Amino acid sequence: MYQLLRDNIEQHVHLSDAEFSHFATSFEAKEIEKKQFLLREGEICRFEGFVTKGIFSVYHLDKNGDKQILYFAHENWWVTNIDSFTNNLPSQLFIEALEDSEVLLISKSDKESAYINLPKIEKLFRVMTQKTHVALQRRMIDSLSKTADQRYIDFIEKYPQLYQRLSNLQIAAYLGVSHEFLSKIRRKIAGQK
Amino acid sequence: MYQLLRDNIEQHVHLSDAEFSHFATSFEAKEIEKKQFLLREGEICRFEGFVTKGIFSVYHLDKNGDKQILYFAHENWWVTNIDSFTNNLPSQLFIEALEDSEVLLISKSDKESAYINLPKIEKLFRVMTQKTHVALQRRMIDSLSKTADQRYIDFIEKYPQLYQRLSNLQIAAYLGVSHEFLSKIRRKIAGQK
Repeated sequence: MYQLLRDNIEQHVHLSDAEFSHFATSFEAKEIEKKQFLLREGEICRFEGFVTKGIFSVYHLDKNGDKQILYFAHENWWVTNIDSFTNNLPSQLFIEALEDSEVLLISKSDKESAYINLPKIEKLFRVMTQKTHVALQRRMIDSLSKTADQRYIDFIEKYPQLYQRLSNLQIAAYLGVSHEFLSKIRRKIAGQK
Repeated sequence: MYQLLRDNIEQHVHLSDAEFSHFATSFEAKEIEKKQFLLREGEICRFEGFVTKGIFSVYHLDKNGDKQILYFAHENWWVTNIDSFTNNLPSQLFIEALEDSEVLLISKSDKESAYINLPKIEKLFRVMTQKTHVALQRRMIDSLSKTADQRYIDFIEKYPQLYQRLSNLQIAAYLGVSHEFLSKIRRKIAGQK
Protein backbone atom coordinates (compact mmCIF):
# COMPACT_ATOMS: atom_id res chain seq x y z
CA MET A 1 0.00 0.00 0.00
CA TYR A 2 2.99 2.30 0.51
CA GLN A 3 4.07 1.75 -3.10
CA LEU A 4 0.74 3.19 -4.26
CA LEU A 5 1.37 6.25 -2.07
CA ARG A 6 4.87 6.62 -3.46
CA ASP A 7 3.68 6.38 -7.07
CA ASN A 8 1.00 8.94 -6.34
CA ILE A 9 3.51 11.39 -4.84
CA GLU A 10 5.97 10.77 -7.67
CA GLN A 11 3.48 12.26 -10.14
CA HIS A 12 4.13 15.64 -8.52
CA VAL A 13 7.50 15.60 -6.74
CA HIS A 14 10.48 13.28 -6.63
CA LEU A 15 11.50 11.96 -3.20
CA SER A 16 14.66 9.92 -2.57
CA ASP A 17 14.23 6.51 -0.89
CA ALA A 18 15.31 8.01 2.43
CA GLU A 19 12.96 10.99 2.08
CA PHE A 20 10.02 8.79 1.19
CA SER A 21 10.74 6.34 4.04
CA HIS A 22 10.83 9.22 6.48
CA PHE A 23 7.62 10.77 5.14
CA ALA A 24 5.88 7.38 5.07
CA THR A 25 6.41 6.92 8.82
CA SER A 26 4.00 9.87 9.32
CA PHE A 27 1.13 7.76 8.01
CA GLU A 28 -0.98 5.35 9.97
CA ALA A 29 -2.80 2.53 8.15
CA LYS A 30 -6.46 2.07 8.97
CA GLU A 31 -9.07 -0.44 7.82
CA ILE A 32 -12.66 0.70 7.54
CA GLU A 33 -15.43 -1.80 6.97
CA LYS A 34 -18.19 -1.18 4.46
CA LYS A 35 -20.83 1.26 5.78
CA GLN A 36 -18.50 2.48 8.54
CA PHE A 37 -17.43 6.11 8.83
CA LEU A 38 -14.03 7.70 8.59
CA LEU A 39 -15.66 10.99 9.61
CA ARG A 40 -19.14 11.99 10.77
CA GLU A 41 -20.91 15.34 10.68
CA GLY A 42 -20.05 17.31 13.84
CA GLU A 43 -16.65 15.68 14.38
CA ILE A 44 -13.40 17.52 13.76
CA CYS A 45 -11.42 16.00 10.90
CA ARG A 46 -7.98 15.14 12.30
CA PHE A 47 -6.54 13.52 9.18
CA GLU A 48 -5.80 13.72 5.54
CA GLY A 49 -6.17 10.25 4.02
CA PHE A 50 -4.80 8.40 1.03
CA VAL A 51 -7.05 5.56 -0.12
CA THR A 52 -5.22 2.29 -0.85
CA LYS A 53 -8.28 0.00 -1.08
CA GLY A 54 -12.02 0.47 -1.48
CA ILE A 55 -14.16 3.57 -2.04
CA PHE A 56 -15.34 6.38 0.19
CA SER A 57 -18.27 8.65 -0.36
CA VAL A 58 -17.89 12.23 0.89
CA TYR A 59 -21.35 13.66 1.40
CA HIS A 60 -23.52 16.27 3.04
CA LEU A 61 -27.05 15.80 4.33
CA ASP A 62 -29.00 18.67 2.77
CA LYS A 63 -31.88 20.64 4.30
CA ASN A 64 -34.33 17.91 3.27
CA GLY A 65 -32.18 15.18 4.82
CA ASP A 66 -31.07 13.92 1.40
CA LYS A 67 -27.50 12.75 0.79
CA GLN A 68 -25.62 15.05 -1.55
CA ILE A 69 -22.38 13.37 -2.56
CA LEU A 70 -19.56 15.86 -3.17
CA TYR A 71 -17.13 13.25 -4.45
CA PHE A 72 -16.07 9.62 -4.33
CA ALA A 73 -12.52 8.71 -3.30
CA HIS A 74 -11.26 5.31 -4.42
CA GLU A 75 -7.77 3.78 -4.58
CA ASN A 76 -5.07 6.35 -5.34
CA TRP A 77 -7.24 9.32 -4.25
CA TRP A 78 -6.86 11.60 -1.27
CA VAL A 79 -9.73 12.16 1.12
CA THR A 80 -10.36 14.71 3.87
CA ASN A 81 -12.66 17.53 4.87
CA ILE A 82 -10.17 20.32 4.26
CA ASP A 83 -12.31 22.97 6.00
CA SER A 84 -12.67 20.96 9.20
CA PHE A 85 -9.03 19.75 9.04
CA THR A 86 -7.50 23.18 8.41
CA ASN A 87 -9.73 25.28 10.64
CA ASN A 88 -10.54 22.79 13.43
CA LEU A 89 -14.24 23.18 12.74
CA PRO A 90 -16.96 20.54 13.21
CA SER A 91 -17.41 18.74 9.91
CA GLN A 92 -20.50 19.37 7.79
CA LEU A 93 -19.58 16.28 5.80
CA PHE A 94 -19.65 12.53 6.31
CA ILE A 95 -16.94 10.25 4.91
CA GLU A 96 -18.33 6.71 4.61
CA ALA A 97 -16.78 3.51 3.24
CA LEU A 98 -18.87 2.03 0.41
CA GLU A 99 -16.74 -1.16 0.37
CA ASP A 100 -14.30 -2.69 2.88
CA SER A 101 -11.57 -0.08 2.59
CA GLU A 102 -8.05 0.86 3.66
CA VAL A 103 -6.52 4.29 4.07
CA LEU A 104 -3.20 5.78 5.10
CA LEU A 105 -3.83 8.71 7.44
CA ILE A 106 -1.57 11.64 8.23
CA SER A 107 -2.27 14.05 11.08
CA LYS A 108 -2.09 17.83 10.92
CA SER A 109 1.02 18.04 13.11
CA ASP A 110 2.83 15.40 11.03
CA LYS A 111 1.88 17.28 7.88
CA GLU A 112 3.19 20.54 9.37
CA SER A 113 6.45 18.82 10.36
CA ALA A 114 6.84 17.44 6.85
CA TYR A 115 6.45 20.94 5.37
CA ILE A 116 9.34 22.10 7.53
CA ASN A 117 11.63 19.07 7.16
CA LEU A 118 10.96 18.40 3.50
CA PRO A 119 9.99 21.51 1.50
CA LYS A 120 9.05 19.32 -1.49
CA ILE A 121 6.00 18.23 0.52
CA GLU A 122 4.84 21.85 0.43
CA LYS A 123 4.85 21.64 -3.36
CA LEU A 124 3.08 18.26 -3.29
CA PHE A 125 0.16 19.59 -1.28
CA ARG A 126 0.09 22.91 -3.18
CA VAL A 127 -0.33 21.02 -6.47
CA MET A 128 -2.81 18.54 -4.97
CA THR A 129 -4.97 21.25 -3.43
CA GLN A 130 -4.92 23.04 -6.78
CA LYS A 131 -6.13 19.88 -8.54
CA THR A 132 -8.86 19.28 -5.96
CA HIS A 133 -9.95 22.90 -6.30
CA VAL A 134 -10.09 22.62 -10.08
CA ALA A 135 -12.19 19.45 -9.75
CA LEU A 136 -14.68 21.17 -7.42
CA GLN A 137 -14.90 24.24 -9.67
CA ARG A 138 -15.55 22.03 -12.72
CA ARG A 139 -18.21 20.13 -10.80
CA MET A 140 -19.90 23.40 -9.86
CA ILE A 141 -19.78 24.75 -13.42
CA ASP A 142 -21.03 21.42 -14.85
CA SER A 143 -24.00 21.49 -12.49
CA LEU A 144 -24.87 24.95 -13.86
CA SER A 145 -24.23 24.33 -17.53
CA LYS A 146 -25.05 20.70 -18.24
CA THR A 147 -28.25 18.70 -18.06
CA ALA A 148 -28.41 15.71 -15.68
CA ASP A 149 -28.40 13.43 -18.76
CA GLN A 150 -25.13 14.92 -19.93
CA ARG A 151 -23.58 14.75 -16.47
CA TYR A 152 -24.54 11.08 -16.21
CA ILE A 153 -22.92 10.30 -19.58
CA ASP A 154 -19.82 12.29 -18.57
CA PHE A 155 -19.62 10.36 -15.31
CA ILE A 156 -19.70 6.97 -17.05
CA GLU A 157 -17.07 8.07 -19.58
CA LYS A 158 -14.78 9.67 -17.03
CA TYR A 159 -15.04 7.02 -14.31
CA PRO A 160 -15.95 3.70 -16.00
CA GLN A 161 -14.52 1.60 -13.15
CA LEU A 162 -16.20 3.66 -10.46
CA TYR A 163 -19.47 3.35 -12.35
CA GLN A 164 -19.21 -0.48 -12.16
CA ARG A 165 -18.70 -0.38 -8.40
CA LEU A 166 -21.41 2.08 -7.41
CA SER A 167 -25.14 1.61 -7.01
CA ASN A 168 -27.60 3.73 -8.99
CA LEU A 169 -28.63 5.31 -5.71
CA GLN A 170 -25.07 6.47 -5.10
CA ILE A 171 -24.67 7.84 -8.62
CA ALA A 172 -28.01 9.67 -8.30
CA ALA A 173 -26.84 11.28 -5.03
CA TYR A 174 -23.66 12.41 -6.80
CA LEU A 175 -25.54 13.86 -9.78
CA GLY A 176 -28.02 15.59 -7.49
CA VAL A 177 -31.07 13.87 -8.94
CA SER A 178 -33.60 11.43 -7.47
CA HIS A 179 -33.27 7.70 -7.99
CA GLU A 180 -36.43 7.79 -10.13
CA PHE A 181 -35.06 10.56 -12.30
CA LEU A 182 -31.82 8.63 -12.85
CA SER A 183 -33.84 5.58 -13.94
CA LYS A 184 -35.63 7.78 -16.49
CA ILE A 185 -32.29 9.04 -17.83
CA ARG A 186 -30.99 5.46 -18.09
CA ARG A 187 -34.08 4.34 -20.00
CA LYS A 188 -33.82 7.34 -22.32
CA ILE A 189 -30.14 6.67 -23.07
CA ALA A 190 -30.79 2.92 -23.57
CA GLY A 191 -33.56 3.84 -26.00
CA GLN A 192 -31.19 6.02 -28.03
CA LYS A 193 -28.66 3.26 -28.58
CA MET B 1 -0.83 49.29 -4.21
CA TYR B 2 2.27 47.19 -3.54
CA GLN B 3 1.88 47.75 0.21
CA LEU B 4 -1.54 46.08 0.05
CA LEU B 5 0.06 43.09 -1.70
CA ARG B 6 2.80 42.94 0.90
CA ASP B 7 0.33 43.06 3.80
CA ASN B 8 -1.70 40.32 2.16
CA ILE B 9 1.33 38.05 1.72
CA GLU B 10 2.51 38.81 5.26
CA GLN B 11 -0.62 37.11 6.63
CA HIS B 12 0.80 33.81 5.41
CA VAL B 13 4.59 34.09 5.04
CA HIS B 14 7.23 36.60 6.03
CA LEU B 15 9.37 38.02 3.22
CA SER B 16 12.39 40.28 3.78
CA ASP B 17 12.42 43.68 2.03
CA ALA B 18 14.76 42.28 -0.63
CA GLU B 19 12.64 39.15 -1.14
CA PHE B 20 9.44 41.15 -1.45
CA SER B 21 11.03 43.67 -3.84
CA HIS B 22 12.22 40.85 -6.04
CA PHE B 23 8.85 39.07 -5.98
CA ALA B 24 7.00 42.33 -6.62
CA THR B 25 8.86 42.89 -9.91
CA SER B 26 7.02 39.78 -11.23
CA PHE B 27 3.72 41.70 -11.11
CA GLU B 28 2.36 44.02 -13.75
CA ALA B 29 -0.19 46.68 -12.77
CA LYS B 30 -3.30 46.92 -14.93
CA GLU B 31 -6.31 49.23 -14.87
CA ILE B 32 -9.65 47.85 -15.94
CA GLU B 33 -12.59 50.15 -16.48
CA LYS B 34 -16.05 49.33 -15.17
CA LYS B 35 -17.83 46.76 -17.38
CA GLN B 36 -14.57 45.73 -19.05
CA PHE B 37 -13.23 42.18 -18.88
CA LEU B 38 -10.06 40.81 -17.34
CA LEU B 39 -10.98 37.43 -18.88
CA ARG B 40 -13.72 36.22 -21.22
CA GLU B 41 -15.14 32.76 -21.76
CA GLY B 42 -13.03 30.88 -24.35
CA GLU B 43 -9.80 32.76 -23.60
CA ILE B 44 -6.90 31.11 -21.78
CA CYS B 45 -6.26 32.72 -18.41
CA ARG B 46 -2.60 33.83 -18.43
CA PHE B 47 -2.54 35.48 -15.01
CA GLU B 48 -3.23 35.28 -11.36
CA GLY B 49 -4.35 38.70 -10.14
CA PHE B 50 -4.33 40.59 -6.87
CA VAL B 51 -7.03 43.27 -6.68
CA THR B 52 -5.82 46.64 -5.38
CA LYS B 53 -8.88 48.71 -6.33
CA GLY B 54 -12.46 47.99 -7.34
CA ILE B 55 -14.45 44.77 -7.60
CA PHE B 56 -14.52 41.93 -10.07
CA SER B 57 -17.31 39.47 -10.64
CA VAL B 58 -16.23 35.93 -11.60
CA TYR B 59 -19.15 34.29 -13.36
CA HIS B 60 -20.37 31.57 -15.66
CA LEU B 61 -23.18 31.82 -18.20
CA ASP B 62 -25.37 28.80 -17.46
CA LYS B 63 -27.32 26.67 -19.91
CA ASN B 64 -30.16 29.21 -19.93
CA GLY B 65 -27.76 32.10 -20.59
CA ASP B 66 -28.12 33.39 -17.01
CA LYS B 67 -25.14 34.78 -15.13
CA GLN B 68 -24.11 32.57 -12.21
CA ILE B 69 -21.60 34.45 -10.09
CA LEU B 70 -19.07 32.14 -8.43
CA TYR B 71 -17.48 34.88 -6.37
CA PHE B 72 -16.69 38.58 -6.12
CA ALA B 73 -13.08 39.72 -5.75
CA HIS B 74 -12.55 43.18 -4.27
CA GLU B 75 -9.49 44.94 -2.84
CA ASN B 76 -7.12 42.52 -1.11
CA TRP B 77 -8.51 39.44 -2.89
CA TRP B 78 -6.88 37.24 -5.47
CA VAL B 79 -8.60 36.52 -8.76
CA THR B 80 -7.99 33.99 -11.52
CA ASN B 81 -9.56 31.03 -13.27
CA ILE B 82 -7.31 28.40 -11.73
CA ASP B 83 -8.46 25.64 -14.12
CA SER B 84 -7.71 27.66 -17.25
CA PHE B 85 -4.50 29.11 -15.75
CA THR B 86 -3.09 25.76 -14.56
CA ASN B 87 -4.18 23.56 -17.44
CA ASN B 88 -4.04 26.03 -20.35
CA LEU B 89 -7.70 25.40 -21.10
CA PRO B 90 -10.21 27.85 -22.57
CA SER B 91 -11.98 29.58 -19.70
CA GLN B 92 -15.59 28.73 -18.89
CA LEU B 93 -15.69 31.85 -16.74
CA PHE B 94 -15.81 35.59 -17.28
CA ILE B 95 -13.99 38.02 -14.99
CA GLU B 96 -15.60 41.46 -15.29
CA ALA B 97 -14.89 44.72 -13.46
CA LEU B 98 -17.98 46.03 -11.66
CA GLU B 99 -16.23 49.34 -10.83
CA ASP B 100 -13.14 51.07 -12.27
CA SER B 101 -10.54 48.63 -10.94
CA GLU B 102 -6.84 47.95 -10.61
CA VAL B 103 -5.04 44.62 -10.37
CA LEU B 104 -1.50 43.36 -10.09
CA LEU B 105 -1.00 40.43 -12.45
CA ILE B 106 1.58 37.67 -12.29
CA SER B 107 2.16 35.25 -15.17
CA LYS B 108 2.51 31.49 -14.92
CA SER B 109 6.23 31.50 -15.76
CA ASP B 110 6.95 34.22 -13.19
CA LYS B 111 5.01 32.24 -10.59
CA GLU B 112 6.97 29.09 -11.45
CA SER B 113 10.26 31.03 -11.17
CA ALA B 114 9.21 32.39 -7.79
CA TYR B 115 8.50 28.84 -6.53
CA ILE B 116 12.08 27.90 -7.44
CA ASN B 117 13.86 31.04 -6.26
CA LEU B 118 11.83 31.62 -3.13
CA PRO B 119 10.38 28.45 -1.60
CA LYS B 120 8.24 30.53 0.78
CA ILE B 121 6.11 31.46 -2.24
CA GLU B 122 5.23 27.78 -2.54
CA LYS B 123 3.79 27.94 0.98
CA LEU B 124 1.98 31.19 0.20
CA PHE B 125 0.11 29.72 -2.74
CA ARG B 126 -0.46 26.38 -0.97
CA VAL B 127 -2.20 28.20 1.89
CA MET B 128 -4.09 30.52 -0.44
CA THR B 129 -5.32 27.69 -2.66
CA GLN B 130 -6.43 25.87 0.49
CA LYS B 131 -8.42 28.93 1.62
CA THR B 132 -10.00 29.37 -1.81
CA HIS B 133 -10.91 25.70 -1.85
CA VAL B 134 -12.50 25.92 1.61
CA ALA B 135 -14.51 28.96 0.46
CA LEU B 136 -15.83 27.11 -2.61
CA GLN B 137 -16.68 24.00 -0.55
CA ARG B 138 -18.58 26.14 1.99
CA ARG B 139 -20.43 27.88 -0.82
CA MET B 140 -21.41 24.50 -2.28
CA ILE B 141 -22.57 23.13 1.08
CA ASP B 142 -24.47 26.34 1.89
CA SER B 143 -26.33 26.10 -1.42
CA LEU B 144 -27.41 22.57 -0.43
CA SER B 145 -28.24 23.20 3.19
CA LYS B 146 -29.53 26.77 3.51
CA THR B 147 -32.53 28.55 2.09
CA ALA B 148 -31.99 31.55 -0.20
CA ASP B 149 -33.31 33.80 2.63
CA GLN B 150 -30.61 32.51 4.96
CA ARG B 151 -27.88 32.80 2.34
CA TYR B 152 -28.92 36.40 1.69
CA ILE B 153 -28.75 37.27 5.41
CA ASP B 154 -25.37 35.49 5.69
CA PHE B 155 -24.05 37.46 2.72
CA ILE B 156 -25.02 40.82 4.26
CA GLU B 157 -23.48 39.87 7.61
CA LYS B 158 -20.29 38.43 6.13
CA TYR B 159 -19.67 41.08 3.47
CA PRO B 160 -21.37 44.30 4.66
CA GLN B 161 -19.11 46.53 2.54
CA LEU B 162 -19.51 44.43 -0.56
CA TYR B 163 -23.27 44.49 -0.05
CA GLN B 164 -23.20 48.33 -0.17
CA ARG B 165 -21.29 48.33 -3.44
CA LEU B 166 -23.28 45.72 -5.38
CA SER B 167 -26.61 45.95 -7.16
CA ASN B 168 -29.49 43.66 -6.24
CA LEU B 169 -29.11 42.06 -9.64
CA GLN B 170 -25.50 41.14 -8.85
CA ILE B 171 -26.38 39.75 -5.42
CA ALA B 172 -29.22 37.71 -6.95
CA ALA B 173 -26.79 36.21 -9.52
CA TYR B 174 -24.45 35.26 -6.66
CA LEU B 175 -27.23 33.66 -4.60
CA GLY B 176 -28.53 31.80 -7.65
CA VAL B 177 -32.03 33.31 -7.46
CA SER B 178 -33.95 35.59 -9.81
CA HIS B 179 -34.09 39.34 -9.25
CA GLU B 180 -37.83 39.01 -8.47
CA PHE B 181 -37.19 36.30 -5.89
CA LEU B 182 -34.53 38.44 -4.19
CA SER B 183 -37.01 41.35 -3.98
CA LYS B 184 -39.47 39.00 -2.28
CA ILE B 185 -36.81 37.94 0.24
CA ARG B 186 -35.94 41.60 0.92
CA ARG B 187 -39.58 42.50 1.52
CA LYS B 188 -40.03 39.49 3.80
CA ILE B 189 -36.97 40.38 5.87
CA ALA B 190 -37.99 44.06 6.06
CA GLY B 191 -41.42 42.96 7.29
CA GLN B 192 -39.87 40.89 10.07
CA LYS B 193 -37.88 43.79 11.51
